[in-house]
Amino acid sequence: MIMPTYEEIKIGDSASFTKTVSESDIYMFAGVTGDLNPAHIDEEYAKKTMFKGRIAHGMLGAGFISAVLGTRLPGPGTIYLTQELRFKAPVRIGDTITATCKVAEKDDAKRKLTMETVVANQDGKAIIEGIAVVMLPAQAG
Amino acid sequence: MIMPTYEEIKIGDSASFTKTVSESDIYMFAGVTGDLNPAHIDEEYAKKTMFKGRIAHGMLGAGFISAVLGTRLPGPGTIYLTQELRFKAPVRIGDTITATCKVAEKDDAKRKLTMETVVANQDGKAIIEGIAVVMLPAQAG
Amino acid sequence: MIMPTYEEIKIGDSASFTKTVSESDIYMFAGVTGDLNPAHIDEEYAKKTMFKGRIAHGMLGAGFISAVLGTRLPGPGTIYLTQELRFKAPVRIGDTITATCKVAEKDDAKRKLTMETVVANQDGKAIIEGIAVVMLPAQAG
Amino acid sequence: MIMPTYEEIKIGDSASFTKTVSESDIYMFAGVTGDLNPAHIDEEYAKKTMFKGRIAHGMLGAGFISAVLGTRLPGPGTIYLTQELRFKAPVRIGDTITATCKVAEKDDAKRKLTMETVVANQDGKAIIEGIAVVMLPAQAG
Repeated sequence: MIMPTYEEIKIGDSASFTKTVSESDIYMFAGVTGDLNPAHIDEEYAKKTMFKGRIAHGMLGAGFISAVLGTRLPGPGTIYLTQELRFKAPVRIGDTITATCKVAEKDDAKRKLTMETVVANQDGKAIIEGIAVVMLPAQAG
Repeated sequence: MIMPTYEEIKIGDSASFTKTVSESDIYMFAGVTGDLNPAHIDEEYAKKTMFKGRIAHGMLGAGFISAVLGTRLPGPGTIYLTQELRFKAPVRIGDTITATCKVAEKDDAKRKLTMETVVANQDGKAIIEGIAVVMLPAQAG
Repeated sequence: MIMPTYEEIKIGDSASFTKTVSESDIYMFAGVTGDLNPAHIDEEYAKKTMFKGRIAHGMLGAGFISAVLGTRLPGPGTIYLTQELRFKAPVRIGDTITATCKVAEKDDAKRKLTMETVVANQDGKAIIEGIAVVMLPAQAG
Repeated sequence: MIMPTYEEIKIGDSASFTKTVSESDIYMFAGVTGDLNPAHIDEEYAKKTMFKGRIAHGMLGAGFISAVLGTRLPGPGTIYLTQELRFKAPVRIGDTITATCKVAEKDDAKRKLTMETVVANQDGKAIIEGIAVVMLPAQAG
């Protein structure tokens, strides 16, 4: 698997990563990050919320964006500079989530890419929308 | 732990969460999110990068912000609307990371809070800086 | 659990290990091994395959063979030399899988055992068939 | 990331996956597979073996082969038919392991590939050697 160099990446290029979010994903994410919000790990509490059940952490979906940027486009060597996230809808246990990152702008002088980052569920509904800025060092390409 | 209501929360209030980041945290985060970037899981690759070794996922540190917002301030019931993240420095295995969220603005009409969100290491060095906007529904307080 | 010595093990002896394969088993196996094949972690993709849903990694079933060899027959001290695996049928989430290892040949000069290794599901259907060769050092028995 | 079709894959093509094996990898693998052999999880026992400490499960390294076949070459859609494994040397905690799969033969009538599968450590020492046979269905390519 050869990662593209900065020069090979074109505006409009995109890549995705898809995973069905399991209960164990949410529980391991809770354990690792310490985010034990009952909305994620307490079904009795969660049943009484507007979501009617446990939901995944928004940052778990954001992690899928990081997976695309760090392993697919641009891939290894990428320096993650900034990320804006707008949380639009919840992820429930069993939802199949796709993070897609698309090159919107290139700044050749600084070797920076502005990426549109969208996370959507199996129905095409947007879960997270946002913008990432990444840099590709000359040697890492 | 008594969660404050929207009315009780004042500008300048802050809360934190601290954890020493272990190799297993990084590995579970990689497995859950699919972010197998070699910077996180391949020491031989990572030794040759500017960081001279494996580093944690930036989004792992962002998860600590979510932990503060969802469990401490404002706490359960919080609706996470937006998060801006500026990744400033890497987290290495064994670093002790503190996420701190501080109320910067209140929008009483919409029950929204703007929070300054900072993640720093044991030396006080900023790892992530950013801004979160959250909402507290009247019933959840 | 007393482990038999090489001398006590007879041709025809067998031992088994059984586990119901959970979604979390598959997800942790994916995270640990890096095998994020969508057949294992993407239900929307998997629904369109001949298997009509997510399946376990073949190597997860092979791990159950290793569990028998390393903990039951011959047990601790076993040196695992070779394993042939023929993948015959998929394992679905919730299937109860039994790995059985049976002594087929003994090579007393080299203290080697040839084991028939079969993994089957709750309906007796073969999942994996194969042959392992293991050695028992004199001191490990 | 576009996976190659059967027709595009040529004899000699190869792909790899690399990971530094952590203690938590070994422990999660033990928990998922039930392989609680003390060589993997009991340091006091393992110190007295020829390996002088805990080692990873051989099948964990085999899982890295599966990661290459199922995600890189040939990639999603691959049907895993057989795998021969010869365990040559142990993996210790902290070793960086690379699985490499190389196309050795193509059987166009049956759309099968014979792959040389090697797992090696950071010093280039072979951990596992073997042969996999995989099939690419016409529609999955």
